[in-house]
Amino acid sequence: MSNPSLLILPGDGIGPEVMAEVRRIIDWYGDKRGLAFDVSEDLVGGAAYDAHGTPLHDDTMAKAQEVDAVLLGAVGGPKYDVLDFSVKPERGLLRLRKEMDLYSNLRPAQCFDALADFSSLKKDVVAGLDIMIVRELTSGVYFGEPRGIFEEGNERVGINTQRYTESEIDRVARSAFELAMRRGKKVCSMEKANVMESGILWREVVTEVGKDYPEVELSHMYADAGAMQLCRWPKQFDVIVTDNLFGDLLSDAAAMLTGSLGMLPSASLGAPMENGRPKALYEPVHGSAPDIAGQGKANPIACILSFAMALRYSFDQGAEAERLEKAIETVLADGVRTADLLGEEGVTPVSTSGMGDAILAAL
Amino acid sequence: MSNPSLLILPGDGIGPEVMAEVRRIIDWYGDKRGLAFDVSEDLVGGAAYDAHGTPLHDDTMAKAQEVDAVLLGAVGGPKYDVLDFSVKPERGLLRLRKEMDLYSNLRPAQCFDALADFSSLKKDVVAGLDIMIVRELTSGVYFGEPRGIFEEGNERVGINTQRYTESEIDRVARSAFELAMRRGKKVCSMEKANVMESGILWREVVTEVGKDYPEVELSHMYADAGAMQLCRWPKQFDVIVTDNLFGDLLSDAAAMLTGSLGMLPSASLGAPMENGRPKALYEPVHGSAPDIAGQGKANPIACILSFAMALRYSFDQGAEAERLEKAIETVLADGVRTADLLGEEGVTPVSTSGMGDAILAAL
Ligand SMILES: CC(C)[C@H](C(=O)O)[C@@H](O)C(=O)O
Ligand SMILES: CC(C)[C@H](C(=O)O)[C@@H](O)C(=O)O
Repeated sequence: MSNPSLLILPGDGIGPEVMAEVRRIIDWYGDKRGLAFDVSEDLVGGAAYDAHGTPLHDDTMAKAQEVDAVLLGAVGGPKYDVLDFSVKPERGLLRLRKEMDLYSNLRPAQCFDALADFSSLKKDVVAGLDIMIVRELTSGVYFGEPRGIFEEGNERVGINTQRYTESEIDRVARSAFELAMRRGKKVCSMEKANVMESGILWREVVTEVGKDYPEVELSHMYADAGAMQLCRWPKQFDVIVTDNLFGDLLSDAAAMLTGSLGMLPSASLGAPMENGRPKALYEPVHGSAPDIAGQGKANPIACILSFAMALRYSFDQGAEAERLEKAIETVLADGVRTADLLGEEGVTPVSTSGMGDAILAAL
Repeated sequence: MSNPSLLILPGDGIGPEVMAEVRRIIDWYGDKRGLAFDVSEDLVGGAAYDAHGTPLHDDTMAKAQEVDAVLLGAVGGPKYDVLDFSVKPERGLLRLRKEMDLYSNLRPAQCFDALADFSSLKKDVVAGLDIMIVRELTSGVYFGEPRGIFEEGNERVGINTQRYTESEIDRVARSAFELAMRRGKKVCSMEKANVMESGILWREVVTEVGKDYPEVELSHMYADAGAMQLCRWPKQFDVIVTDNLFGDLLSDAAAMLTGSLGMLPSASLGAPMENGRPKALYEPVHGSAPDIAGQGKANPIACILSFAMALRYSFDQGAEAERLEKAIETVLADGVRTADLLGEEGVTPVSTSGMGDAILAAL
């Protein structure tokens, strides 16, 4: 049997430097744990635009469809702000999500014990926090038609369409319930059913899916109340399931609450391929951070933890994922810190690759 | 000259009991400060549905159009969850906003010194916080057409339309800049221009309006980053301007951050009427809290501060508004607390009307 294949898309800004550390980890798994991957690398985002005039070349798209998993760094940067909407770096990422049909975006919001002090929230509110936000990723207002800027009378109007079919809601809800079964057995679904008909349908379908998971406690919350409750007492949640746009805001807020933004990975999963593995793309939650790019200041942990998610969700290597997560916890407990995590007394500041060294040593 | 007119719509849940305290304050202004109002009262939300089978009777709508300002308590409750979308309590509120064309929703997120400990955020993050979120209130996905649940092939699809014209963006942006001129001279505009064309138009028009306010520092942020930054360091903001849906989530998150949810008022303003006053509706940010309704536990301060906003924005009585706000600060500093604010040592618990008594005494 051939090795599982990985396509690496470092992207822009700090993407390449954090991905370099991931590659060292991948190599370690090949050398030391007999888990070799066929790794190829390609361009996405601004880097792809610079090379090809498009944020995602068709060849790259085709490769992404064939591999067992894609690892992405980050896209975007001020240099590309002037580009037309259709070729902005983000479009490369959105095309990957859409064409790979990665409908279930898993965004864990976890607070690392060693870092609880970095949260703007009180320690008792966030210490030990471990929630999972499941965000629908291939539909809703991100992709709905009609969309665009149109002339109307003597002015322009900007239009986007929020749009969800029953089956789109059904499949992402199912993935949330499946996750909840392996976690705290609670799902909270968030929409604006009091204002939006798409939210009414969302609530109805999630309720219906919930009947197939009688062990899971299902609740519903308006998204504004959800934003409030995330800020007030996030530990009340286990799994949250929500649409593409609400998920964008709510998962970012939740990530920030943990104080561990540079630490948070994500998995975007689609339907199973022929080999049984889901279509999958893994990426850190943080952006391309152009202000610190190329300076060895970036924290590679979110990207490394994204690879840990790949081990768990694409390659059925839960124990190896845990090994990697434990190594990272050890390193943090030892006080090893990249620039984003400085501020405490008695810690050891390291560069991006210094963090990679420390994690490899802990492995 | 006749007295300025106020229409009071107590609504559902704790609405009537908090509004009863506002009426005592209004009476005090008539008796003691020579500021008499012609007050009428009517039904909205579930209360209106119970009486008339509609969450807002046409007669009430007509009255709202005629008065100088509307004060609203809260709408909604579990009893009405089973109602059809078209007659849910919220539709009454949305109809008022839409037909009165109240496009500029001012939501101050302020942290009261005496209450900073109630925030889930660290004290230094929220103490002294004073930001103003200006939310567009009459357009966007709340009102865009087409909308509904439709059959498509052999399944249903839920559709809503995000829709902004240049003039809709222009007028709410102007109100944000005007406010910033009287505050910290900073406006941050939030959208998802990286994903939504309506966000591109939003950013363009806000930038254009900004040219008329060269003294105001304008910045732009993606709404997900905005949610993050609000959680991380809210004091970086002065005025935030954003659309109806983002404003719904962001202002609720910001309100929760202050720890003073039961304390936050809002003003919804439209174009000037013939008498020069803007069309206006004032309401607390909190909801109808059906779980504690009728028990004298509700905190009337948000609703009373909404009346203070009415004094300021509808009746040009800034000094009188400050008098009321100061009285409330005094009462809080004295340790007078409704049930939602208990927990500290040495405070004096009071009922809803006890809080009214204390504020009247301080006035
Ligand atoms: C980069 C951008 C298009 C993207 C999104 O809005 O989905 C990002 O914010 C995210 O959450 O992954
Ligand atoms: C009650 C509801 C319709 C309303 C909204 O979504 O606008 C509320 O959440 C608000 O923010 O005033």
